[in-house]
Amino acid sequence: MWLRASNRLLFEIAEPTPFILMLRPRSGTQQWIAREEYNVVPGCPVTEFTDIYGNLCQRLVAPVGRFEIYTLAEVQVADEMDRAPGAPFVEVQALPDAVLDYMLPSRYCESDRFNLMATEITQGALPGYDQVVAIVRWLRERIRYEPGSSDIPVSAVEVNQRGVGVCRDLSHLAIALCRSLSIPARLVVGYLHGLEPMDMHAWFEVYVGHRWYTFDPIPGSQPLYGGYISIGYGRDAADVALYNQFGSPVYPIDQQVSVENIARDARV
Amino acid sequence: MWLRASNRLLFEIAEPTPFILMLRPRSGTQQWIAREEYNVVPGCPVTEFTDIYGNLCQRLVAPVGRFEIYTLAEVQVADEMDRAPGAPFVEVQALPDAVLDYMLPSRYCESDRFNLMATEITQGALPGYDQVVAIVRWLRERIRYEPGSSDIPVSAVEVNQRGVGVCRDLSHLAIALCRSLSIPARLVVGYLHGLEPMDMHAWFEVYVGHRWYTFDPIPGSQPLYGGYISIGYGRDAADVALYNQFGSPVYPIDQQVSVENIARDARV
Amino acid sequence: MWLRASNRLLFEIAEPTPFILMLRPRSGTQQWIAREEYNVVPGCPVTEFTDIYGNLCQRLVAPVGRFEIYTLAEVQVADEMDRAPGAPFVEVQALPDAVLDYMLPSRYCESDRFNLMATEITQGALPGYDQVVAIVRWLRERIRYEPGSSDIPVSAVEVNQRGVGVCRDLSHLAIALCRSLSIPARLVVGYLHGLEPMDMHAWFEVYVGHRWYTFDPIPGSQPLYGGYISIGYGRDAADVALYNQFGSPVYPIDQQVSVENIARDARV
Amino acid sequence: MWLRASNRLLFEIAEPTPFILMLRPRSGTQQWIAREEYNVVPGCPVTEFTDIYGNLCQRLVAPVGRFEIYTLAEVQVADEMDRAPGAPFVEVQALPDAVLDYMLPSRYCESDRFNLMATEITQGALPGYDQVVAIVRWLRERIRYEPGSSDIPVSAVEVNQRGVGVCRDLSHLAIALCRSLSIPARLVVGYLHGLEPMDMHAWFEVYVGHRWYTFDPIPGSQPLYGGYISIGYGRDAADVALYNQFGSPVYPIDQQVSVENIARDARV
Repeated sequence: MWLRASNRLLFEIAEPTPFILMLRPRSGTQQWIAREEYNVVPGCPVTEFTDIYGNLCQRLVAPVGRFEIYTLAEVQVADEMDRAPGAPFVEVQALPDAVLDYMLPSRYCESDRFNLMATEITQGALPGYDQVVAIVRWLRERIRYEPGSSDIPVSAVEVNQRGVGVCRDLSHLAIALCRSLSIPARLVVGYLHGLEPMDMHAWFEVYVGHRWYTFDPIPGSQPLYGGYISIGYGRDAADVALYNQFGSPVYPIDQQVSVENIARDARV
Repeated sequence: MWLRASNRLLFEIAEPTPFILMLRPRSGTQQWIAREEYNVVPGCPVTEFTDIYGNLCQRLVAPVGRFEIYTLAEVQVADEMDRAPGAPFVEVQALPDAVLDYMLPSRYCESDRFNLMATEITQGALPGYDQVVAIVRWLRERIRYEPGSSDIPVSAVEVNQRGVGVCRDLSHLAIALCRSLSIPARLVVGYLHGLEPMDMHAWFEVYVGHRWYTFDPIPGSQPLYGGYISIGYGRDAADVALYNQFGSPVYPIDQQVSVENIARDARV
Repeated sequence: MWLRASNRLLFEIAEPTPFILMLRPRSGTQQWIAREEYNVVPGCPVTEFTDIYGNLCQRLVAPVGRFEIYTLAEVQVADEMDRAPGAPFVEVQALPDAVLDYMLPSRYCESDRFNLMATEITQGALPGYDQVVAIVRWLRERIRYEPGSSDIPVSAVEVNQRGVGVCRDLSHLAIALCRSLSIPARLVVGYLHGLEPMDMHAWFEVYVGHRWYTFDPIPGSQPLYGGYISIGYGRDAADVALYNQFGSPVYPIDQQVSVENIARDARV
Repeated sequence: MWLRASNRLLFEIAEPTPFILMLRPRSGTQQWIAREEYNVVPGCPVTEFTDIYGNLCQRLVAPVGRFEIYTLAEVQVADEMDRAPGAPFVEVQALPDAVLDYMLPSRYCESDRFNLMATEITQGALPGYDQVVAIVRWLRERIRYEPGSSDIPVSAVEVNQRGVGVCRDLSHLAIALCRSLSIPARLVVGYLHGLEPMDMHAWFEVYVGHRWYTFDPIPGSQPLYGGYISIGYGRDAADVALYNQFGSPVYPIDQQVSVENIARDARV
């Protein structure tokens, strides 16, 4: 499946404001970026670096006035995400070194507080993939998905108390539950084709059966459906903000996200 | 100053238990490891890797029964830690890429919740080093240092509510306050000569004036005093546990920490 | 200056052939990639990774038959490259760790064989930038630049013996001479606006005065001229091949490179 | 097997001389460093960093006069090195990203020049481990091992012409031959118990059957024998010098290497 995804962010900047952006999807095992655009208007010096999670990040100081960031990508993605019911739990001693960080508690995923709850939720499930299936099923039953219900990230403990959250919140709680069972889990931010209402999206991946698998706890995301474009990976939303901004807080005055299916021929 | 530091950890293991250890100090700009010992008894296969923060970590599966880990290091450290009153705040856009992670909120340092409080505490202080001095002074006045008052790590928000904490807790709160002012800050775990009662210790570093400086919020740690041996760095205690252990919780049945001043001649 | 650069490589593949490509310019301190296309026809699975020098590399297995790789980039580059006559030599002990590798001899830059020659060539020049200027002047006088004169990379020793070479050869010799004076030097591969005949290009950078500076030993490249788009960095051509191909050798049956100046308005 | 290995290097320094040292073995999958000493006399500031190959390196400026470097390590190593006759060649597309660098030609291993010769030498051998066995057999028959026969590193092409070499030379030629067959190969420097005459040693590893295996082309090194302590890894001797020294050349006026078998009890 070929997708064309774009994101337009508009700010009104009152004083020169340093930004760190994470808006550039990378080609990898699950997606191929065939075309990409990345504009800042007005133009300003931008430098790029790779963070500790492998994300391509851009640094700039937004000038005073209207400031627009526009990104577009044409990406080939899988029609269906891989599934692997029964894929086994990987013993800690067999995990690759690079995966170990995704077992630790983090800002919005206090996995050190969820062991009993996770054990209960996954009772009877085979260790590994099936435990994650049980966690996602529990989340869909117990935590109401409500886009727009939280502006700033809240942590797994808070999401569990509230019983409601945005996509990022549900994933934070799922991640905390997985890690509490020693299943490595990480947050992914990106685009999802067909999301209603259209917006940037967050979901999560777990490491079972010796590779990463994608899960999405929001309702209606059938397990076999594809259409995901990953932009950033990290332990939680603290690591994978689409933009981090420093100094007096600045909020976008407009944001437009679009994801459309394009025919291969239309693309060439 | 030459120090000989050692740590003996004794466990009673009921079932084979995976461990990740961080007990190996590394030579760097501030310390030189001239001699090191590292024993596990009974012997078992150990592999070593470097984590994303540059720490040398060891992985092993502890066998059933008594399991002892013993490390010793002879280290040359500074007699006095560097101080730099007036060292300026570094604008975000001028920070090295590798420092940016230490500005983000983390598991035990919810810096996103402390901006008003930090601004108040540091009122009148020059941006940079002097703000950190104000934060440490405030901590010494308002948060009681009580070794042994918490077993498991608690977060900056909780420490602030309790008004009491161990060394790690005080540093977590200091780090959260610094980061909320866009000052990069990180936790350090290691040894401190002269600590009473002797134990492993935690303190923090901040990035001002274009380098890292050491601070220690516990009372009695004169600003000019040296005697610190760093073992691990990270965003907070989630990243720099001396040991992370997976599966059913296991606690040391005995731990002995020792740090003594040795004459240069005695060492050779 | 805004440039639109493209490269079309056409192969006739007789058996499935693994490739590693390095064709994706990255945004950095000296260039901003505002638009990028990257197509392989017929489509095939591609994965991407970052090599030890920070280059974005793509891996694929080219299927049998006609195989085309097409890349395009619209890039903002400096109108003039920075110059710094008099910029001082950096003492080895003051070099950043990450720069040290660029002081060692490498496959095509046997810097261990050029110390006497380099000392002679740079006699009277201030250590640092001015030594590199002397080396480039010597190269322009003594080594004839002849595009197409070598198909496969030859080493600095061989270039020096032949007295003639392509852009890559001249840079290899320049790099070997610089390193023999303990000046870190690296090869850069990319596009150059205005190059005659148009082709992919190679030049080099040296680390003096505490940063990297660009040099180009081919005649007619005025020192102040800009128009360079960097694609890959490395110790020499062994590290920065636009494509590495394994198995029976395969050569492009057609290659078309284009670099044009585009008006900012045309771009938006 | 427990080994105690030490190396004493003595220099007479005429002017302050920057050194980069690689003398610190690291614990890994094949060795456990239980005790280590590392002294420089007279003491001077030393900083440590990890290079792109994962080696721990030390930087210092040696002061004028007698300068001694002394390192000692007590290490648990395998009694016998792993062997795997028949272990298959790994297709390029299946190699881990981190292994790809070890397929490229390098300063002393011009693998781009050896394809025909390697094909001939390994005729009839199964692709993979058995090809490396054939290469080592050929080396033992055709290249005379003569400790002390070369002072400075010479390249694989030169070793092949001379027909004689030190351990490092034989390994360089073996590596070039392996890489020309698309088998990743790297140089290892370290200690070997029982080496006659005792000295620091160099051997090589190849990546077949999805892991690294050790080979040693010097005669008398039985394939099953253990006793190897690895200190540094790299593409060739340019990357893994025990010491790199800059400025006017300085040579050790004395070097003493020792490796002895110690009983486990003697060690504790």
